Amino acid sequence: MVARNAIYAQSGGVTSVINATACAVIETSRKHPQAISNVYAARNGIVGILREELYDTGNETADAVRQLRHLPGGVFGSCRFKLGTPDGKDPQARRLFEVLKAHDVGILFYNGGGDSQDTCKKVADLGKLFDYPVQCIGIPKTVDNDLAQTDNCPGFGSVAKYVAVSTKEAALDVQSMCETSTKVFILEVMGRHAGWIAAAGGLAGQGPKEPPHIILFPEVAFDRRAFLEQVTRKVESIGYCVIVASEGTRDAEGVFLADAGTKDAFGHVQLGGVGATLARMVSEDLGYKHHVAIADYLQRSARHISSQTDVDQAYAVGEAAVNAAVAGESDVMVLIERLQDTPYRWKTATTSITRVANVERKVPKSFITKNGFGITARARRYLSPLIQGEAYPPYEEGLPLYKELRRTPVTKKLQPFSQL
Amino acid sequence: MVARNAIYAQSGGVTSVINATACAVIETSRKHPQAISNVYAARNGIVGILREELYDTGNETADAVRQLRHLPGGVFGSCRFKLGTPDGKDPQARRLFEVLKAHDVGILFYNGGGDSQDTCKKVADLGKLFDYPVQCIGIPKTVDNDLAQTDNCPGFGSVAKYVAVSTKEAALDVQSMCETSTKVFILEVMGRHAGWIAAAGGLAGQGPKEPPHIILFPEVAFDRRAFLEQVTRKVESIGYCVIVASEGTRDAEGVFLADAGTKDAFGHVQLGGVGATLARMVSEDLGYKHHVAIADYLQRSARHISSQTDVDQAYAVGEAAVNAAVAGESDVMVLIERLQDTPYRWKTATTSITRVANVERKVPKSFITKNGFGITARARRYLSPLIQGEAYPPYEEGLPLYKELRRTPVTKKLQPFSQL
Repeated sequence: MVARNAIYAQSGGVTSVINATACAVIETSRKHPQAISNVYAARNGIVGILREELYDTGNETADAVRQLRHLPGGVFGSCRFKLGTPDGKDPQARRLFEVLKAHDVGILFYNGGGDSQDTCKKVADLGKLFDYPVQCIGIPKTVDNDLAQTDNCPGFGSVAKYVAVSTKEAALDVQSMCETSTKVFILEVMGRHAGWIAAAGGLAGQGPKEPPHIILFPEVAFDRRAFLEQVTRKVESIGYCVIVASEGTRDAEGVFLADAGTKDAFGHVQLGGVGATLARMVSEDLGYKHHVAIADYLQRSARHISSQTDVDQAYAVGEAAVNAAVAGESDVMVLIERLQDTPYRWKTATTSITRVANVERKVPKSFITKNGFGITARARRYLSPLIQGEAYPPYEEGLPLYKELRRTPVTKKLQPFSQL
Repeated sequence: MVARNAIYAQSGGVTSVINATACAVIETSRKHPQAISNVYAARNGIVGILREELYDTGNETADAVRQLRHLPGGVFGSCRFKLGTPDGKDPQARRLFEVLKAHDVGILFYNGGGDSQDTCKKVADLGKLFDYPVQCIGIPKTVDNDLAQTDNCPGFGSVAKYVAVSTKEAALDVQSMCETSTKVFILEVMGRHAGWIAAAGGLAGQGPKEPPHIILFPEVAFDRRAFLEQVTRKVESIGYCVIVASEGTRDAEGVFLADAGTKDAFGHVQLGGVGATLARMVSEDLGYKHHVAIADYLQRSARHISSQTDVDQAYAVGEAAVNAAVAGESDVMVLIERLQDTPYRWKTATTSITRVANVERKVPKSFITKNGFGITARARRYLSPLIQGEAYPPYEEGLPLYKELRRTPVTKKLQPFSQL
């Protein structure tokens, strides 16, 4: 085996634990110098490869690499970028292989969600077309938890924990004050196409009396009347109502609540997120005092409350990716296989990347209660292990402690590329 | 000294540490049976006193009381309720003293913010009018940190830590993606009249290059042009801009941005919170992709990231309140006195409640940078000690562990009261 260089790239929305995967790729590669000479990290994902903007991770100290385990965001930068069709004529595709060749890159670790696995597959296909051997290894990452084949996605467990903990805490706040103040609290969470994150909010309580009292999934057609009836029922019976709403909540026609908005007194459409739209419905039809929280990026960057399971798995998929590369695998994505719910046992494995790319996994019907507003015992068995353990970062002066990486650029060998 | 009963009541918006104060009041009272027979907790604050809805804390186990240190929300319920003028004719005032007499209550511990201290003062005044001796002891609590006399308010330090940590984490997320995705991130925080919470966001970074790049205070008149210029400058120089905006941000005429809204293409006013309003300005005038998070109740209930300083102080003011009562004090509020910035040293003391009631403390000019968008070194010296230390709650199955209290009702002795 001749040692070659590897590129590691982060892609798509970042998570609070994607850097734990970066840490694992770098640390594990260092144990295999016979197979991997250097790990270059692409600046801002695939855009950095096209621009020949690479960092030499070999210049980072072991300490600096180790602390990536608790650094949220994407330390090398990520991107939202769609690579053209892999027909060999696309200038970007040709450029990409020029860069790989120029730096003797034989392994690509591509760390991302569904779209990113598709990109990884395209590169693998192009490698065959150009007759340039490159091992393409996809590494899963997405807070949305919507990747196919893998039991769950690194990044999701921590958002799930954040949403469950926040829902539980905020519900206690609302409960304290509901008699003379806010009666309806809405927490808007991510998940435009799949309701996994909203479902995780359900872990905050144990049954219909405990909050959250309503979960809104993209998988369940929103019915204004049924929703408002449920809100009324909860406020009248227990004094308040806590709602966890997926940003992807939509009606039977598939129209997102966030896009539909509601009409004001003059008939003008008022746009806003799903939280604002629901709040207006509650206000107009029921007159209850309400509050809305929008977790937005806070939920996916909240490394301070990441789940230990998630951090462990984010590391494990990075480690498994390097091991797969060393074993000569290609065109695969690493995945997490669940062996047992209780006590939770899991392992990593690999699957053909073709089976993953562009396939979206939604919350199954068996996870959602009959009324469409809650999660079933089966959903709890699935979700609960993913939020176990508290992987606290170190603190200094009251704030999480982050050290800067050196991020030494690899010397460029090609002309600049402008066709981006 | 003849032992009498005490009532402990929570009032106004709750915090993540107000129950630590409740814990201290109960635990410390138990050490002074010669002065305090029973501590009755009012259900939903003063409303519970008027309704004669009291819980006998004597029935709670030591373990159950101890865990109040890490329970967010207000465990006995709180309220927003304004007591009438203390002229002795008000039926509520008379009822209140009927309840105090019926249960031989000689001490009132009133745990709240500015309005609540005013209520506490009214009760003290009424006691003199009715010639019924009741020791009124105010205990400070407010996430807004706007109480007079005290150096800071229990509840604020934890929100400050939450906002600083969340800003730091979210900024890393935005930084990772800004080249091809979101360039402007807005975090809307509480503080309708004072910008203390927004100021705390400034702790996330150390200077003009580090996020947050813009803080919007209610104390600084909002200038749309200056704001948009600053956003542009930051995006052009470092690629992104992180903004922490107080919900109380207002223009030179004192109009809240949240109430003013912006006009859409048809000239219709679009209402929304300050975050939504700022986002529309950024979108319309600059065209940058943006995201908005609204921390809302999450910030003030986030016990999972409470500051140890805050938990310690919340406990200390409860302890000091009981000690003040045992020492025979009345018409006072407990406060926190800062003895030294570095290393931080503080102690509790008491002050006349007259000096506190209805006085609002804003962020001083010396804490805000000349351009109005940042915090000064002096502000850092003040704020930093308040977020020190991580007072993590215990966890079970991935979630904070809360035990239910017994909350045994005290047997009623009076007729129901309907004039609420």
